Amino acid sequence: MSDQPIKRRKFIAKSVQAASLLALSSSAYAIGGCTADTRKLGIALLGLGSYATNQLAPALEHTQHCRLAGIVTGTPSKIGAWQKNYAIPDKNVYNYDNFDSIKNNRDIDIVYVVTPNALHMPFVVRAAEAGKHVICEKPMEISSDRCKTMITACEKAGKKLQIGYRLQYDPYHQQLMRLGQKQEFGKVKLVNTGFSFYGVNNDNWRFTDAKLSGGGPLMDIGIYSLQGVRYSLGEEPISITAQRYKTIMDKLPDMEETICWQMEFPSGAVANCTSSYVARENYIRVSSEKGVFGLEPAFSYDGLEGYINQGVMPPQTHIQQAAQMDAFALNIKENTPVIASGEEGLRDMVIIEAIYEAARSGKKIIL
Amino acid sequence: MSDQPIKRRKFIAKSVQAASLLALSSSAYAIGGCTADTRKLGIALLGLGSYATNQLAPALEHTQHCRLAGIVTGTPSKIGAWQKNYAIPDKNVYNYDNFDSIKNNRDIDIVYVVTPNALHMPFVVRAAEAGKHVICEKPMEISSDRCKTMITACEKAGKKLQIGYRLQYDPYHQQLMRLGQKQEFGKVKLVNTGFSFYGVNNDNWRFTDAKLSGGGPLMDIGIYSLQGVRYSLGEEPISITAQRYKTIMDKLPDMEETICWQMEFPSGAVANCTSSYVARENYIRVSSEKGVFGLEPAFSYDGLEGYINQGVMPPQTHIQQAAQMDAFALNIKENTPVIASGEEGLRDMVIIEAIYEAARSGKKIIL
Repeated sequence: MSDQPIKRRKFIAKSVQAASLLALSSSAYAIGGCTADTRKLGIALLGLGSYATNQLAPALEHTQHCRLAGIVTGTPSKIGAWQKNYAIPDKNVYNYDNFDSIKNNRDIDIVYVVTPNALHMPFVVRAAEAGKHVICEKPMEISSDRCKTMITACEKAGKKLQIGYRLQYDPYHQQLMRLGQKQEFGKVKLVNTGFSFYGVNNDNWRFTDAKLSGGGPLMDIGIYSLQGVRYSLGEEPISITAQRYKTIMDKLPDMEETICWQMEFPSGAVANCTSSYVARENYIRVSSEKGVFGLEPAFSYDGLEGYINQGVMPPQTHIQQAAQMDAFALNIKENTPVIASGEEGLRDMVIIEAIYEAARSGKKIIL
Repeated sequence: MSDQPIKRRKFIAKSVQAASLLALSSSAYAIGGCTADTRKLGIALLGLGSYATNQLAPALEHTQHCRLAGIVTGTPSKIGAWQKNYAIPDKNVYNYDNFDSIKNNRDIDIVYVVTPNALHMPFVVRAAEAGKHVICEKPMEISSDRCKTMITACEKAGKKLQIGYRLQYDPYHQQLMRLGQKQEFGKVKLVNTGFSFYGVNNDNWRFTDAKLSGGGPLMDIGIYSLQGVRYSLGEEPISITAQRYKTIMDKLPDMEETICWQMEFPSGAVANCTSSYVARENYIRVSSEKGVFGLEPAFSYDGLEGYINQGVMPPQTHIQQAAQMDAFALNIKENTPVIASGEEGLRDMVIIEAIYEAARSGKKIIL
């Protein structure tokens, strides 16, 4: 089955009778014995926190190529509601002890790891070793070494790995990529971006446990600005400077409260970025030789708005997480490269390490 | 006459019959022998470049307390058009050689120095020594030492000095000051601001002669961001980091092309700023504990737009330069402190020197 869609696309591309052939190829699935339901790859969500509960599970009601098939949780009290809400059979419910037996469950094609950051590596490795494709929420992990371990584990298992960079699959952000990388307004010269929110909540591991989070707002939300700069340019930074600040001394242990960082790119483009847990900003602005474009709000789950010079980017109705998971399901079905790959997550982690080193040392880091 | 308005204001403040007394005091000007025309202080513009031509002279057609009375220029060919357009008599036209004789001209109360930056000091000193009040365009000069010389000269002459910070007199920017300094949304935590334009024009001293300009975009336009941060906070920075970049190696001699700088304030607030001659940005965004407000466009001559959280700041119809010059004329008439004072210009110059030193050394500068 996995090759079927590739053949279909090539076939259509070569044909002068695309419309009639599309009808034929659609029915080919049925000929192959696959019903619409079974063609939806089964996803098990691992870690039933707020992102899984409020974003991923609802998004999976809108996916075309995958579906919510199972859950993996360390909190038994959550199981009942999830089974009821999403008709999850008992056999597709796992805890962290019996999780490895998921390898025998043919309902589950993909495990989506949505745990705190420093638990990504062990669960991604276990999922890959259980023969499952893996989606891992961002940031990929808390160090580049741990990211490499994850990539190696998936490669060794012959399984695909996607990082939960929902915005790489968002039409507004795809516009940024296109406008910047195709140099539609000439070379990009400067990118300004900030993603911050106000509110340190001591009930959440993000703010209280650097061993789990690996850092402060940079790891949590600034990573979206980093991604935005990189894919607006289609280049990798060659130097980094950074500054970190802290005013709330009794919170955010071993984490920055606010961080600014600057990146220099081979083309000469410069980016100036900010991320903070005590501010309010959510924008990316790309200045080019002949024009400017950007998004504000830029990084939210929905309600994004975009501009190109004085004009407005056409509004998009879009479920980011559904697009992201469907794209991964298609990557698996069609055996195509994953856009938000493990290597992409690793690249960010290497840069994040350089940003923290630049902030710590006060020195420019050459990459 | 100069004490009259002060007495008047005190009188009104103490009175329970303000309305009738206002009528009395208004007529006091006439009793003192001043007609409406002569009460407008006479301004001589020194340096008839594009800012004097396209902004200041037209603005002086809308001022209530001052008027365009004379010109000082090194370019004789410009004189005819100015005399014709603004009915300037021969006796109020000076060149740079005979300029000092302006001290005998009772039509001229104020000299507005609009030359390239490094000529501000000699002309401000000469104007003060000629017994004139002085407005000096921003940036005040190219070094803090030269700024001090200017302040001393005006003090010694007993004359007032204003720096051409038009935005300190703009209602949108006054909103920033009020919202930030009064902490209407709690403490300010982060200010992001950028002022840049794309276009290096080799016909202009700003881009070709660092001895005249004293620097690149920071001196020219970034100074507005610096001002905006300082008056949104009502605080002075305690530390500076900065990064400068250059890609056009055959232009902008001894100047930065793009500069980013960060400032830390006693309250813990942080600012991240950008200015460039190869980018397009014009905004200031003030994040506070309980809200966000800002302007975009923020620093233009007109067309500013402001927001407070999700709302829009009421639109303002306003001629910045007219408000600025009228305020100075009133400061002279009423002998009140100048808001955009020489000391204010000096403070910026000290910070600008620290920004350049931070960029040069790569080190954090403690102020």
